[in-house]
Amino acid sequence: MAKESEGAAVRERSGRGRGRRPMDEVRADVLRTVGELLLAEGTADLTFERVARLSGVSKTTLYKWWPSKGALALDGHFHAVQETLAFPDTGDIRADLLEQLRAFAHVMTRTPGGRVLAELIGQAQTDAELASAYRELYSSQRRRLAVERLGRARESGQIRADVNLQVLVDQLWGAVYHRLLIPDEPVTDDFLVALVDNLLIGIGPHSGHD
Amino acid sequence: MAKESEGAAVRERSGRGRGRRPMDEVRADVLRTVGELLLAEGTADLTFERVARLSGVSKTTLYKWWPSKGALALDGHFHAVQETLAFPDTGDIRADLLEQLRAFAHVMTRTPGGRVLAELIGQAQTDAELASAYRELYSSQRRRLAVERLGRARESGQIRADVNLQVLVDQLWGAVYHRLLIPDEPVTDDFLVALVDNLLIGIGPHSGHD
Repeated sequence: MAKESEGAAVRERSGRGRGRRPMDEVRADVLRTVGELLLAEGTADLTFERVARLSGVSKTTLYKWWPSKGALALDGHFHAVQETLAFPDTGDIRADLLEQLRAFAHVMTRTPGGRVLAELIGQAQTDAELASAYRELYSSQRRRLAVERLGRARESGQIRADVNLQVLVDQLWGAVYHRLLIPDEPVTDDFLVALVDNLLIGIGPHSGHD
Repeated sequence: MAKESEGAAVRERSGRGRGRRPMDEVRADVLRTVGELLLAEGTADLTFERVARLSGVSKTTLYKWWPSKGALALDGHFHAVQETLAFPDTGDIRADLLEQLRAFAHVMTRTPGGRVLAELIGQAQTDAELASAYRELYSSQRRRLAVERLGRARESGQIRADVNLQVLVDQLWGAVYHRLLIPDEPVTDDFLVALVDNLLIGIGPHSGHD
C-alpha cells in the first residue's frame, strides 16, 4: 500500500490531526487497536506496519515503545482482557474465584487470545527478551492482581493467615495453564470448581465441608 | 565422517555384530544413549546422525521408530528420568509426594533435562505433531504414574474419596511447570512443601493441622 493511502486510512480512522494528543492517550489508542486485533484474529496478521496504519502512529514510535512484536502483543492483550479478567470482590472468595476463573477459562479456550498467550509462552522458552517482556508486561501484573484479591480474603479470615498467597496463584491459574499448554486433560467447569474446593476445603480425610 | 569410520565407531562402542539383537533391546539401547546425551548436554547436539553413530542403529530405523527429533528426545528423556522420578510408596502420602516433587524439581532446575522439556513444550505450541508426541511419549505417562500413587492414597483413606485425582496432578506438578515456564517466582523447597500442604490440609479457616 502506498504512503498516501495509508495516511488516508489513518485520518479516516482517527478523525483528528497528527501529533497533538498526549502520549498516554496515543499509547492507550494503540493498545486498544492491538487488543482488538488479537482477540479477533490472533497474532498472524499483527505487524508493526498494520498497527501503524490503523493507529496513525509511526513505526519508529511503535518500536520505541514496544521493541518487538511479542512485547506489543503482550501489552495489547493485557489491556484487552483487563476488564474481563478483573477480580470481583463480593466478600465471598469461593464465588469470586470461580467467577474469575470461568472468565479466564473462557478467554483462554474460546477466543484467539488463548492461542496468542500459549504461543508467546512457547516462544519465550527460547527467547530471553520475550520471556522478560512476558513477565513484565503480562504475568507479573496478573499475578499481582490475583494476590491483591487473595490478600483481602486472608485479611477477612476466609484464607488462613499462614498461607503463602503466591503459591495459590500457581495452584489455580497455573493449573489451568498446565492443561492449556500440555492438553492431556480438558479445562472443564468441574475442573475449575475442583481447583478452588481442593484448596479451600483440602483433600485430606480430616478436611471437611462446613 | 565417512561411512567406514562410523561403522568402526559403532563396533567399538557396541562391541557386537549388527542386526542380531532383539528389537526391544536395540530400542532400549538407543533410548539410553539419547537419555544420557540429553541429561548431559540438552538437545543442542542431539541429531539423528549422532545417535545413529553412537548406537549403531541406522538412521532409517531411527526415523521409523521416532519420526522427529522431538519424539526421540521425549522418549529418551522419559526413560532417562524414569527411575529418578519414580513414585515412592512408604504409605505416607505427604512424605512420598514431597520426596518425588523434590526429585522432579531437581531434574527440572539442576539438569539440562529441564531446559529440554521447557523447549519442547514451547515448540509444541506451534507444532501439532510434536504436541501429540509430547502427550503420548511423556506427559500422559507421567500423569498416569502420579495418579496411580495418588489412587493408593485415596484407597487407604489419606485422600478423601470424592477427590478427582487428575486435578491434583495440575495443582502439584502443573504448578511447578507454571513457575518453570513463566518464571515470575522461583521453585524453592518452601514452595514444594506449600503445594502439598495447601491441598492436604486446605487453606480455609476451618481446615487445620491434625
